[in-house]
Amino acid sequence: MLGKVVVIGVGLIGGSFALSLKKAGAVGEVVGMGRSPKVLERALELGIVDSITVSSEQAMRGASLVLIAAPVAQTQAILAALEPYLEPHTVVTDAGSTKGDVVHAARAALGNKIGQFVPGHPIAGRESNGPDAAIDDLYVGKKTVITALPENRVGDVELVAGAWQACGALIHHLSPQEHDRVFAAVSHLPHLLAFALVDDIANKPHAELLFQYAASGFRDFTRIAGSSAEMWRDISLANRDALLGELDAYLAQLTALRGKLADGDGAALEAVYANARRARRAWTGEIEKAEQPAPSSAE
Amino acid sequence: MLGKVVVIGVGLIGGSFALSLKKAGAVGEVVGMGRSPKVLERALELGIVDSITVSSEQAMRGASLVLIAAPVAQTQAILAALEPYLEPHTVVTDAGSTKGDVVHAARAALGNKIGQFVPGHPIAGRESNGPDAAIDDLYVGKKTVITALPENRVGDVELVAGAWQACGALIHHLSPQEHDRVFAAVSHLPHLLAFALVDDIANKPHAELLFQYAASGFRDFTRIAGSSAEMWRDISLANRDALLGELDAYLAQLTALRGKLADGDGAALEAVYANARRARRAWTGEIEKAEQPAPSSAE
Repeated sequence: MLGKVVVIGVGLIGGSFALSLKKAGAVGEVVGMGRSPKVLERALELGIVDSITVSSEQAMRGASLVLIAAPVAQTQAILAALEPYLEPHTVVTDAGSTKGDVVHAARAALGNKIGQFVPGHPIAGRESNGPDAAIDDLYVGKKTVITALPENRVGDVELVAGAWQACGALIHHLSPQEHDRVFAAVSHLPHLLAFALVDDIANKPHAELLFQYAASGFRDFTRIAGSSAEMWRDISLANRDALLGELDAYLAQLTALRGKLADGDGAALEAVYANARRARRAWTGEIEKAEQPAPSSAE
Repeated sequence: MLGKVVVIGVGLIGGSFALSLKKAGAVGEVVGMGRSPKVLERALELGIVDSITVSSEQAMRGASLVLIAAPVAQTQAILAALEPYLEPHTVVTDAGSTKGDVVHAARAALGNKIGQFVPGHPIAGRESNGPDAAIDDLYVGKKTVITALPENRVGDVELVAGAWQACGALIHHLSPQEHDRVFAAVSHLPHLLAFALVDDIANKPHAELLFQYAASGFRDFTRIAGSSAEMWRDISLANRDALLGELDAYLAQLTALRGKLADGDGAALEAVYANARRARRAWTGEIEKAEQPAPSSAE
């Protein structure tokens, strides 16, 4: 049971964390902080947080756990504002989609208090944002990656893991560098590709005609292009090197595929498509197996 | 009311057409044909078709309408087999995702009977295939594009349109060339991109680790990479020129975006992302408005 939890950024991610902890009875009190008074007031109105404040000093007094759920580019400024009021027992974590840059920012802001910062990344989302999108089961069955630092105390890592487990999440451990390489490939690159495709089509002179015939396949392919442009700007820049590496590999793959298409090489095209289909089916098969309820012990 | 309808290819598309016509009471009898006896027998078992045959002569005797719902590369061979038995009143249509090549194949196979062929393309799909995936409401509220030929009789075009309307579809008219340019952009290119991404990841040495962290965004982005490799090989080749044009435009777009990322130009990245987000939101807003039930006349 956590006592006082401070959530900085009370939108989808932070708000769902607060609601999930409350539902589990795992928290005494949730305090909301953030940039926008309007958003904070909405979170209070929705019962996501018990109180709101603009004072770091007041927020941090007696806090067990602080979650930073704001665009990653703001991490350093947020931590620098908290640092003077950080009590020795308080653990700070975050929900940023990149970790290398967050760790760098945290070291700069916290100095020798860096051991109190346990970086994290819940792998969950929805198409909508803000406090109204927050739900109490967003994290159930989803992964949260913790990228612990050498300076972290084991008990503090366990406290962060326990909070996410109370939300229903499954805990995975990666290094910040492993994390960033993995997510460049399976998340950041697909976002960039989807944004690029929609922008490409929207800028064509016959865009209106094209959108008229876009159907469910296009809708699913581009769903992630409905995400926050500011957030994805920050993520792209924060994980720039890994993302450039993945983008270059993909550009090489597309250029090779273009050659096969230009040559009319049906067998080569089919081999790529069939390999993709097989790999995707194997992957979704694994997911479905994981989502099956465990058999009861009586069987 | 149609009399005898022949469906060639009794999987998702052809099977759903048959089931929808039956549900609407718009057909007397449905005869199934196709490459695989096993698939035909399954369609018969499921009540999708009333009888099955391997004889073109028998199938075509007294038929009002024939739907070809097979991979587009087979269109010419199928039409050539039907041609000797094509009665003057029979109308033939298809459900192919490309139209220029289909028209070319139809002209070669049908010669001076080309006026009896009315090309079509229902814009609907599901992730699964085969007769077991066929449903009686696949086309409700979806578009069917008819790309009529100069040789078509107006009454025959109306017969094909009427059949799709009985299935619940909305009829749109484009030329075969317009059709192929539009679908290269909003369907064929996204399929190629999704196949390429999954193949790219599956071929990496740490593919297993990557798939472990792929989440719902990746799942949606790559849903279309679960489609039939053979079908998409055929579509890619059939619409090669338009698809190459769209792919080249996209490669140029990605290369420009890569430059912005490498330069760390956050404002330029955000502008692309924000434009994509705005365009997609406007598009999905239009779809949602179109899906609203019409207000009743009393209001």
